[in-house]
Amino acid sequence: MFDAKKFVENSLKDIRKIVGEHRVISACSGGVDSTVTTVLVHKAVGDRLVAVFIDDGLRREGEPEFVVKTLKSLGIRTKFIDAKKEFFAVFKGKTDAEEKRKAFRDKFYKTLGKAAKEEQIEFIAQGTIKADIIETVKGIKSQHNVLEQIGISPESYGYKILEPLKELFKPDVRKVARELGLPKEISERMPFPGPALSLRVLGEVTPEKIAVVRKATEIVEDETKALGTFQNFAVLHNDKATGIKEGKRVYGNIVTVRIVDSEDAVTAKAGKVPHKILMRIAERITGEIPSVVRCLYDLTDKPPATIEFE
Amino acid sequence: MFDAKKFVENSLKDIRKIVGEHRVISACSGGVDSTVTTVLVHKAVGDRLVAVFIDDGLRREGEPEFVVKTLKSLGIRTKFIDAKKEFFAVFKGKTDAEEKRKAFRDKFYKTLGKAAKEEQIEFIAQGTIKADIIETVKGIKSQHNVLEQIGISPESYGYKILEPLKELFKPDVRKVARELGLPKEISERMPFPGPALSLRVLGEVTPEKIAVVRKATEIVEDETKALGTFQNFAVLHNDKATGIKEGKRVYGNIVTVRIVDSEDAVTAKAGKVPHKILMRIAERITGEIPSVVRCLYDLTDKPPATIEFE
Repeated sequence: MFDAKKFVENSLKDIRKIVGEHRVISACSGGVDSTVTTVLVHKAVGDRLVAVFIDDGLRREGEPEFVVKTLKSLGIRTKFIDAKKEFFAVFKGKTDAEEKRKAFRDKFYKTLGKAAKEEQIEFIAQGTIKADIIETVKGIKSQHNVLEQIGISPESYGYKILEPLKELFKPDVRKVARELGLPKEISERMPFPGPALSLRVLGEVTPEKIAVVRKATEIVEDETKALGTFQNFAVLHNDKATGIKEGKRVYGNIVTVRIVDSEDAVTAKAGKVPHKILMRIAERITGEIPSVVRCLYDLTDKPPATIEFE
Repeated sequence: MFDAKKFVENSLKDIRKIVGEHRVISACSGGVDSTVTTVLVHKAVGDRLVAVFIDDGLRREGEPEFVVKTLKSLGIRTKFIDAKKEFFAVFKGKTDAEEKRKAFRDKFYKTLGKAAKEEQIEFIAQGTIKADIIETVKGIKSQHNVLEQIGISPESYGYKILEPLKELFKPDVRKVARELGLPKEISERMPFPGPALSLRVLGEVTPEKIAVVRKATEIVEDETKALGTFQNFAVLHNDKATGIKEGKRVYGNIVTVRIVDSEDAVTAKAGKVPHKILMRIAERITGEIPSVVRCLYDLTDKPPATIEFE
């Protein structure tokens, strides 16, 4: 049995020992992993931690405001970085999934590195968990926060990495969040990938396409709150399909709804969702987003699919 | 109430009056519309009709053989044209849905026109039905066999058009098929578009992609035989997505399953199919087709979607 209290005690000691008198920066996306990491480090080193929220333009509706407000309410020194334009610029012309991930990762580390320099810190704290490491090492995904595991030296970016959760799986991270007294919106928060909505736009990532998938995501989350599933989201395809809007043939967007049950994201089951709920989601997505003519539901378990599309 | 017997009687008279002593060619795809047309014309003018089956490489598994065998067993003079290479050649480099339809239509009429010249015929019989005309005129689809309605002169191709079913909707066509004593495999046959599997491959049509969607179609049809739905099929996306095969990350194909209920194809409802059946289809498609990592289900009614994707 995992003992969250004991884990927190040991973590605080470890972090203090590793960090010493240095300063730490923590990139907090608002997800449970990065928020628990941020709070743990804050508890360990106090104001020698600065949390940064990088607004890459790829977040869910209202998320930047929510995360910054939450961190400040916990008494954590927080820096907001508006990098929307820069992120969209690096995605320009890139359609390959792996290229997009790499472009995101590179821009993320550069942005963070710049902030780290300004703050004169030595350590970057990251919310890497065990599943990320397993899958990156196996070659199943290229996670943006497990540089060490894939043989990239974090020193080349100019800092050291602190990963207090790297031995934990998701359910244990949630236990730690509860132990730390974090609000439910954090401790029970649905997983959301580092590169965020950029993975949920197939093909080139543009502000227009992100706006479509952001709205679709909002509808899916709104209609599936009561399901208790592990992860619920929307994906915007690059392919188009024919449809009929206002009596005329149009060539419009396709959105896929993905709902999965999982313990730890290493394997997952396609959710068995009542037909009525799926139809309501499809009606809302095609009704409320003018460019969308088709709504699909992903029937595939992991494996053979992954949870995300890219 | 539609009287199929009366319709057949009147049709035979009309066809004889229009055709006179000329010769007729009928392009029969094996669908209920074109087969009923072929059989009606054969009944009216006997051996002055030649049926042709154009193998465009876009048909379902086993279909060319089945259609030719059926026509011959009905005593109809039948010509088989192998045009697979020529059709794939015209699709080369074309990714736009409307361009693909036009390329198909043009190649179809040229192939048929050539056969018509060889057979020295004056009339081409076609299985156009009322729904095709309504939708083409409304601009919802560009049907390949309703040239007259969209203002293209069939004479420019060198022949006259005979469309004995153009006042009927699908359920009445099936009644006529039963009245004519056609086998159930024809009279109850699921609708299948003229441009066939080419509409079910998003993006460029290649022999490899047709092979994938043909296999997926076979699986969908096999698993949904008992549902009694109007149309059940598979679509291969041009987009790719990540998946896991044999423990390794791969970037593979996406297939969508489309099952709809409809009376006449003018409107349609996304089928309410038991979760177990959908999951079995997804497992078979991702399990039996090596390149496919994801299987989706289309939740959209018509409107706002169309039945087919292109």
